[in-house]
Amino acid sequence: MAVIAMLGYGVVGSGVAELILKNKNKFKNRLNEELVISNILVRDMDKYKDNKNKALLTNNIEDIFKKKVDIVVEAMGGLNPSYEYVKRALEMKKHVVTSNKDLIAEYGTELLELANKNGVSIHFEASVGGGIPILKSMNECLVGNEIKSIRSILNGTTNFILSKMNHDNMSYEDALKLAQKLGFAEANPESDVMGYDAARKLSILSTIAYNKKVYWKDINIEGITDIDINDFKYAKMRGCSIKLLGVSQKDADNIYASVRPVMVKENSVLGKIEDEYNAILVEGDAVGDVLFTGKGAGMFPTASSVFADIADIVIHKEEEAITFNEEEAKINKKWNTDGKWLIRIKTDDRIKVIENITANFTSSYILSNAISMDKDEVVAFINADSETIIDDCIYNLKKDGYVKSSKKLLIFEK
Amino acid sequence: MAVIAMLGYGVVGSGVAELILKNKNKFKNRLNEELVISNILVRDMDKYKDNKNKALLTNNIEDIFKKKVDIVVEAMGGLNPSYEYVKRALEMKKHVVTSNKDLIAEYGTELLELANKNGVSIHFEASVGGGIPILKSMNECLVGNEIKSIRSILNGTTNFILSKMNHDNMSYEDALKLAQKLGFAEANPESDVMGYDAARKLSILSTIAYNKKVYWKDINIEGITDIDINDFKYAKMRGCSIKLLGVSQKDADNIYASVRPVMVKENSVLGKIEDEYNAILVEGDAVGDVLFTGKGAGMFPTASSVFADIADIVIHKEEEAITFNEEEAKINKKWNTDGKWLIRIKTDDRIKVIENITANFTSSYILSNAISMDKDEVVAFINADSETIIDDCIYNLKKDGYVKSSKKLLIFEK
Repeated sequence: MAVIAMLGYGVVGSGVAELILKNKNKFKNRLNEELVISNILVRDMDKYKDNKNKALLTNNIEDIFKKKVDIVVEAMGGLNPSYEYVKRALEMKKHVVTSNKDLIAEYGTELLELANKNGVSIHFEASVGGGIPILKSMNECLVGNEIKSIRSILNGTTNFILSKMNHDNMSYEDALKLAQKLGFAEANPESDVMGYDAARKLSILSTIAYNKKVYWKDINIEGITDIDINDFKYAKMRGCSIKLLGVSQKDADNIYASVRPVMVKENSVLGKIEDEYNAILVEGDAVGDVLFTGKGAGMFPTASSVFADIADIVIHKEEEAITFNEEEAKINKKWNTDGKWLIRIKTDDRIKVIENITANFTSSYILSNAISMDKDEVVAFINADSETIIDDCIYNLKKDGYVKSSKKLLIFEK
Repeated sequence: MAVIAMLGYGVVGSGVAELILKNKNKFKNRLNEELVISNILVRDMDKYKDNKNKALLTNNIEDIFKKKVDIVVEAMGGLNPSYEYVKRALEMKKHVVTSNKDLIAEYGTELLELANKNGVSIHFEASVGGGIPILKSMNECLVGNEIKSIRSILNGTTNFILSKMNHDNMSYEDALKLAQKLGFAEANPESDVMGYDAARKLSILSTIAYNKKVYWKDINIEGITDIDINDFKYAKMRGCSIKLLGVSQKDADNIYASVRPVMVKENSVLGKIEDEYNAILVEGDAVGDVLFTGKGAGMFPTASSVFADIADIVIHKEEEAITFNEEEAKINKKWNTDGKWLIRIKTDDRIKVIENITANFTSSYILSNAISMDKDEVVAFINADSETIIDDCIYNLKKDGYVKSSKKLLIFEK
C-alpha cells in the first residue's frame, strides 16, 4: 500500500485525485499495490461542501503530517507555503511529487539535495511541458548523449496569443483579452507574457541537459508584450511565424540560454505547434534531433505526469531520480554565433540608419519604403556574426540621436 | 562494475561499443559505476583485422558465456541464432538488451517471462523508433492513461521512398532504386516495402499500449508496392501526402491494428515527417495527444536507445521493466468506423461502377473524366461507414465482371 497526501485541490490537484481513483484497480491487479489518499489540504473548506472527496479534505497542514504517509503530492503552486511544506515533507523522509516549476526553478538544487540526504526522492515531471514526458526522457533515455541544444515552446498562454495574432490578425491586446476570457491567461498575465514562466521551465530543462545549474534569473528573458502585427507581416515575408522560444545550447564552455520571441518557419516542426501545445526539440550528439510535443498544461495532461511520478516511486522505488549539479553554468545572454535577424529602427533619418546597417552586417536586405509598414521605420533582414554587433550598431546610432525606438528578432530557418 | 558482452558488431553494435567507451568517464564520475565490455561476438574475424577493439572480438559464442558477465547486448538482428543466444543468456541470469524487433515481435512474451522467472530483465527500447524513447515513455510516463490510439511512421525506408515519390515525382521503382543506392534500402527490400518491419514494431507498441498481446502476423499488413504516382496526384487534390502508417486503436473490446498506406494532410504532424524520421502519435485518455519524433534508425540513434537500456539496468536496477500480457487481443483488420477514402476502380463500364458507388456510400465525390488520370478508371473520394461496405461493394462489382483492378486508401484529415 502506498499512502499519498495531497497539498492543493485546484485544477492539477483534482485531476491527480481523479487519476489515482481511476487507476486504483489497475495498480491492484497488475502491480499488487494499493494507492490510498490520506488527506487533501485545501485553503477554503467551504468551497468543497458538495465534493465527493469531502471526507479527505482538511485546511490544517498538521493533519497531513501526523498521518503515516509515503508520498506527498504538492499541487498548490507558488513558493509560499509550498517551499516550507515540501522541505518539511522531505525532512520527514516522505517522497515528494510536485508540478510546481516556480518551486523547482527557485529551490531545485536545495530540495534535491535535501531529498538525497534523507534517502527519499522529489519528482517534478509535470513542472515542464505538462503531460509531455520530457524530464525522464532526457534524464534516462538520452543518458548516453551529450545534449547540444534545446529549442522549446514551453508556455501555452503566450503560444495561444501569438497563434491568434498570426492566424486571426489580432492585436496583442485583443489576443490577450481573448486568452483571459477563455481562461488561458490569468488576470495578471505577467509571469506568462513577460517570459518568466518559460524561463523557469527552460532553466529546469537546461540544468538537467547540461549537468550544470542554469538559474532562471540568469537567462536572457524577453516577453511578447512588444510584438506587434507588423512583426507578423514581416515574418510572413520569410514564410515564418513568431513563437516565444526557450533556447539553450552549448557555446564552447558556456551555455547560451534565452527566452525570446523568434521567427520560425511556419512549416517547421516548431512553427506547427499551436495554441496550448508545447514542444521540446532536443539535439543530442548520438540521437540527433528528437521532438516531443503534447499539451503543456490543463487538468489531466498535468495529472498524467504527476501520476507517472507517483508510479515511479511506487513501482520503481528510485531514490534519486534526477540530480541537479550545484556547479553553476556560465551563461551567455547573447546569441554570439552567426544568425539571421529582422531589425526595425524608427528614425527621422532613414539614410543614416541604412548606411550604418549596410556597413555593419555581412548581408542586409532593406525593405523599400513602399513595402515597409511605417514610413519612419527602417526594416531590414540581416545576417550578423553576433548579436553584440547588432546591439553595438544600434547603440551607436542611438547615441548619435538617430534612433527613436528599435527592436530585433532572431530568425530560425530550420 | 558492470560487465557487458556484445553479440554482433555491425552498424548498431559498433555504435553501442563507441557510446560505452565515450560514456565511461561520465559513468565513473557521476554514478561511480564502471562499464566494461568483456567480448564482442562476430561472425568473420578477418573483417576486423585493423579494428581498435580487435582484442575483444571472438567468433566463439562460448567465449561470451564463460566469462562473468552482467549484461548481454544482442545486436545481431534476425531470429537465428539470436533467439537461442538470448534465451541462453536469460537462463544464465544475465540481463539482456536488444535492438531486435524481429526477435521481440516473434518471441517477446516468452522471453519476458523467461527473464522474469530468472530474476533478470530484457530491455528493447531500440527495437521501435530507433533513438526515440517511446517504449519507456509509454510504459512508465503514460502509466496513468488508458491508451486510445497509436498512429505512427515506423519504417524509414518506406518513408524515404514515399517522400521521394511525393516531392520529386519519382516512380516507386526509381525511388526504391535510389534508396538502395544510398543504403536506405536493402538489396532484398521485402521486409520494409511489404510493411512487415512496421508491423513488428506496431505489434510491440500495441502490446504495451493496450496490455494485451497484439501478434504481428494478426495485424492487417499492406505494403507500399502498389502505390503509384497517380495516388500522390489524387492525394494532392486533398492537400495530402501518403505515408505508411502503423495504426492501432481501441474498437470496443477489440483492437483495430493495421500497417497500410494512408493519405494524411501534408501540414499535419505526421504529414511533416520525412525521409528517415519516425514518429509516434499516442492518444491517452488523460494526456491527450503526445507526439514523439526522431531518427528511426542509424548507428548512433539506435545506439542511444541501447545505451539507455544498459544505463537503466546499471543505475535503476529494474528487474522487470516492461511486461507483456499473454492474453491475446481480438484484432480487427478492417477500419470499421466512419472514414474517408480514395477509391480507384479500373473498369470497362464507368457508368455501372459510378452507379454502385453513389448508391453505397454516405457521400461520394467522383472525379470527372477530365481530371482522372486514366480514362478506364473511376476515381472517387468517398465517405463510408465502414471498410467492410467498401469491400462488399467492390466484391459485388467484381463478381459481376465490372472490375479489372481496384485499390482503396484511407484518408486521415487531422
